[in-house]
Amino acid sequence: MSPSVIALLHGPDQPGLVARTAGWIHQRGGNVLHADQHLDRDENVFFQRVEWLPASNHSIEEEMGSFRELVAGELGMQVRLARSDQRPRVALMVTKADHCFHDLALRQRAGEWDADLVGVLSNHETLRSVADSYDLPFVFHAVSRESKADAETEQLAWLGEQKVDLLILARYMQVLSAGFLEKIGCPVINIHHSFLPSFAGARPYHQAHKRGVKLIGATAHYVTQDLDEGPIIEQDVARVSHRHGAQELIERGRDLEKLVLAAAVRRHLQHRVLVYGNKTVVFD
Amino acid sequence: MSPSVIALLHGPDQPGLVARTAGWIHQRGGNVLHADQHLDRDENVFFQRVEWLPASNHSIEEEMGSFRELVAGELGMQVRLARSDQRPRVALMVTKADHCFHDLALRQRAGEWDADLVGVLSNHETLRSVADSYDLPFVFHAVSRESKADAETEQLAWLGEQKVDLLILARYMQVLSAGFLEKIGCPVINIHHSFLPSFAGARPYHQAHKRGVKLIGATAHYVTQDLDEGPIIEQDVARVSHRHGAQELIERGRDLEKLVLAAAVRRHLQHRVLVYGNKTVVFD
Amino acid sequence: MSPSVIALLHGPDQPGLVARTAGWIHQRGGNVLHADQHLDRDENVFFQRVEWLPASNHSIEEEMGSFRELVAGELGMQVRLARSDQRPRVALMVTKADHCFHDLALRQRAGEWDADLVGVLSNHETLRSVADSYDLPFVFHAVSRESKADAETEQLAWLGEQKVDLLILARYMQVLSAGFLEKIGCPVINIHHSFLPSFAGARPYHQAHKRGVKLIGATAHYVTQDLDEGPIIEQDVARVSHRHGAQELIERGRDLEKLVLAAAVRRHLQHRVLVYGNKTVVFD
Amino acid sequence: MSPSVIALLHGPDQPGLVARTAGWIHQRGGNVLHADQHLDRDENVFFQRVEWLPASNHSIEEEMGSFRELVAGELGMQVRLARSDQRPRVALMVTKADHCFHDLALRQRAGEWDADLVGVLSNHETLRSVADSYDLPFVFHAVSRESKADAETEQLAWLGEQKVDLLILARYMQVLSAGFLEKIGCPVINIHHSFLPSFAGARPYHQAHKRGVKLIGATAHYVTQDLDEGPIIEQDVARVSHRHGAQELIERGRDLEKLVLAAAVRRHLQHRVLVYGNKTVVFD
Repeated sequence: MSPSVIALLHGPDQPGLVARTAGWIHQRGGNVLHADQHLDRDENVFFQRVEWLPASNHSIEEEMGSFRELVAGELGMQVRLARSDQRPRVALMVTKADHCFHDLALRQRAGEWDADLVGVLSNHETLRSVADSYDLPFVFHAVSRESKADAETEQLAWLGEQKVDLLILARYMQVLSAGFLEKIGCPVINIHHSFLPSFAGARPYHQAHKRGVKLIGATAHYVTQDLDEGPIIEQDVARVSHRHGAQELIERGRDLEKLVLAAAVRRHLQHRVLVYGNKTVVFD
Repeated sequence: MSPSVIALLHGPDQPGLVARTAGWIHQRGGNVLHADQHLDRDENVFFQRVEWLPASNHSIEEEMGSFRELVAGELGMQVRLARSDQRPRVALMVTKADHCFHDLALRQRAGEWDADLVGVLSNHETLRSVADSYDLPFVFHAVSRESKADAETEQLAWLGEQKVDLLILARYMQVLSAGFLEKIGCPVINIHHSFLPSFAGARPYHQAHKRGVKLIGATAHYVTQDLDEGPIIEQDVARVSHRHGAQELIERGRDLEKLVLAAAVRRHLQHRVLVYGNKTVVFD
Repeated sequence: MSPSVIALLHGPDQPGLVARTAGWIHQRGGNVLHADQHLDRDENVFFQRVEWLPASNHSIEEEMGSFRELVAGELGMQVRLARSDQRPRVALMVTKADHCFHDLALRQRAGEWDADLVGVLSNHETLRSVADSYDLPFVFHAVSRESKADAETEQLAWLGEQKVDLLILARYMQVLSAGFLEKIGCPVINIHHSFLPSFAGARPYHQAHKRGVKLIGATAHYVTQDLDEGPIIEQDVARVSHRHGAQELIERGRDLEKLVLAAAVRRHLQHRVLVYGNKTVVFD
Repeated sequence: MSPSVIALLHGPDQPGLVARTAGWIHQRGGNVLHADQHLDRDENVFFQRVEWLPASNHSIEEEMGSFRELVAGELGMQVRLARSDQRPRVALMVTKADHCFHDLALRQRAGEWDADLVGVLSNHETLRSVADSYDLPFVFHAVSRESKADAETEQLAWLGEQKVDLLILARYMQVLSAGFLEKIGCPVINIHHSFLPSFAGARPYHQAHKRGVKLIGATAHYVTQDLDEGPIIEQDVARVSHRHGAQELIERGRDLEKLVLAAAVRRHLQHRVLVYGNKTVVFD
């Protein structure tokens, strides 16, 4: 099958945007596979995801370039383009908990994503054998207060060499520095084990247990320099009761964390997530 | 605010459909408020909901007529058109249970729908006082084996006089005859108190209790001549356990029935539901 | 049917508590209808709900008095006793929103609770006609900064005269003073329109919309002097997306608020909720 | 820690059952860790799960034997006894789908259950490498119409040698014969990929897609000679829409199947599930 183009665009609303993009694609002989749009009436911002097969007489590079001219040039909107035949390169960061690691690796193997797992970074040796079992490179850097800057430099170097398109913090128990986030040059998705904004920070299940909530949650979000404050991609909850101690919340939370992180990663890799301000538009 | 047009269309897929409809609206100076489409790849059928404000120099009748020509004529698709300033006229059929009746009447009063409740038909006198409390006409017809045909004739006459656009069976405990459904000329929505296709027919909570299910459900569907077999609009479930007898399932089911029926009615009245074959496309 | 006794007890764990209470009831010829217990292993606190039919040769007053001696005296535990033939007297406080008011009044009428609604207090006249439609006394007190103390005094006097056993804040948009809560002498249940502890305080749906959460919530809790910090009885959530503005969150939240408040009230009136510390044990 | 005893008992209700069992344990110096009971008022059957630590002067064998005398002898009830220090031996049957297999193996490794996985039976060679990766014996028997009887004989022999306490059909795509089920001598849990009783039999996701349901489900149940008719242990559902073809239902269903099967297995291994008639009591 010839590759398709996926465009995520947004900008100030103006009349005829759907007609302009759909008309452009149609006139060049392209075939729209999926189109969805959203208008934020409060902010007057128009959002669109459109995926199409270019006509065979247009190379995909030419199609993408011309579309960018239309949207970024004529229409004055921001646009992100992807092609269906380029498999994103994904890296994981982990510490000691392995449930999200196994879950993501098995989903990738099962073909749930059109993406490659290129390796695993960790601040502990604990999960090296798990990485080995999936034939994944495992790169260890000790991270202490003193070594953190050096470790991050080396982590960035490795991620750069690997040309990573997405970094997933699969229960990585270190805060990434502002400098790291500025330099990384690709999105970073984290799973936080609470229903944010409740119980940000450390030991969220203990906080939840202490407060006596009747539901626990998990939140997948893009990482920004404000800890646990980045744009939320996906959340879910599970019912608990007085019978569950903090330890049982931790155990029950694992399934939530796996599902919520996997859903966020899948949507991101399908180019369905648009960030604006501190929020996301997630096209189904 | 000037009224908008809402079109629900479907038919065989062909290249450029989004461009054709969006382009047509844009060229005539209209402003798209909402557009969503779906392609059933198995059946190769294209579905679209599009809502737009016509330019002020086009009357809404003219806009609707011309759009119909485009879609039904040139494009060869089926289309249903509605205008935002025409409030649908809704009637209820009830028997003795009042929870869905109260729920729908209160939602209508609270302005959840742009629709009018024009009256209530019943085969029992039980809920006349409820209808009175909402200032709704209440029309009683006894329905026995012998009187059913006559009762249906009178019910149809009343519905016709009232120019009803939607009939809701809000726990109406009689089966409507094939003849009634042929003649009524408007959609009929029913709430069935199970997760269809499980437990079709009578006493679904008793069936569910006997089978020992761990979730009970409710299903809102369009009524067809095949009992409990019509196109499903909405479903939901609630968790139960061995502690719940059949009577408790009935009580717990009431909230489900209210929510599921209300959701289906809201979507229908917002012109978001397209029927094809025995299924629905529900645009969010 | 002769009345049953319901006991909610808790205190430091000690060997044989289940045997002691069950044995006591059995020896006196009583018949246990329901028994459930919980041990908080962190705090070493034992909780029990037990409901039984006393033997016909014991008056219910005598049975309750003797049981209290056993539990509070011999076993050194705290105990709350109720009898199934005493219908609790419930009052509502409302402001302008009527959805929880209708919902509670209809559930009471439908016989979902063995309790009486004795009247409605409000700081606005808006819902007087709703109270009238249910034949409920409606008592209005204007509440301004200056008049608040006087209004609360009168509200307390009315609640005292009515011998109210439970006060429900059904979207009452005033903070009750510490003095009011000290003097009222019965539990107060509030519905907060967020998933606490997220979005405590004013305009929670606007806060939720701004944060871009993917689920909205509602929380029913006992009112304490710390606003929105009291023991949580029930919580639930509903899925939302970027398509929902703050106004739509408000509308969608109504169903959640109704269901969560109703569930909490039902459990409370069934004597299933035990408060300890700032948490609840809710026996199913 | 010394081992505890877990008893699951049921039989005709009679006065004082809770007092009898709790009193017996207390008098012998035992310490109740968990007790829960249920009375089916329709059938007048009493169910109880009780777990306790025997006093140190009683051997656990003696405690279990004496308790059996009390319950089965004096009280005339059925009882199943387990001891916390005996790890159940669990075997899997699989065909080609590996998601439930991975999920169960990882949970066992993570210590979610106090149970051992002893091996995997299959009618295909496909998943041998998965079994190898978990160091699990993998036993292949080709199953055709002709070879089925012989294969089952060998499977039974292997299960007997392994002293298996629980057999899990983790997407095993063969129907077990009545003879196999009679001889196996331990419970068999199956995961069916629909919300039973809807869509029993083959290709349930295709059936669900054809019917146009708005939720898909999964059901874990004990296997009986009536296909897909055995006592239900756990069920859950997930929302789908017109956008999901049959293939997407299959993919989305995998997470459901994993979670529902894992929940059922966990409850079973914790001795929380009591079967009676064709239903289950599942103590939380």
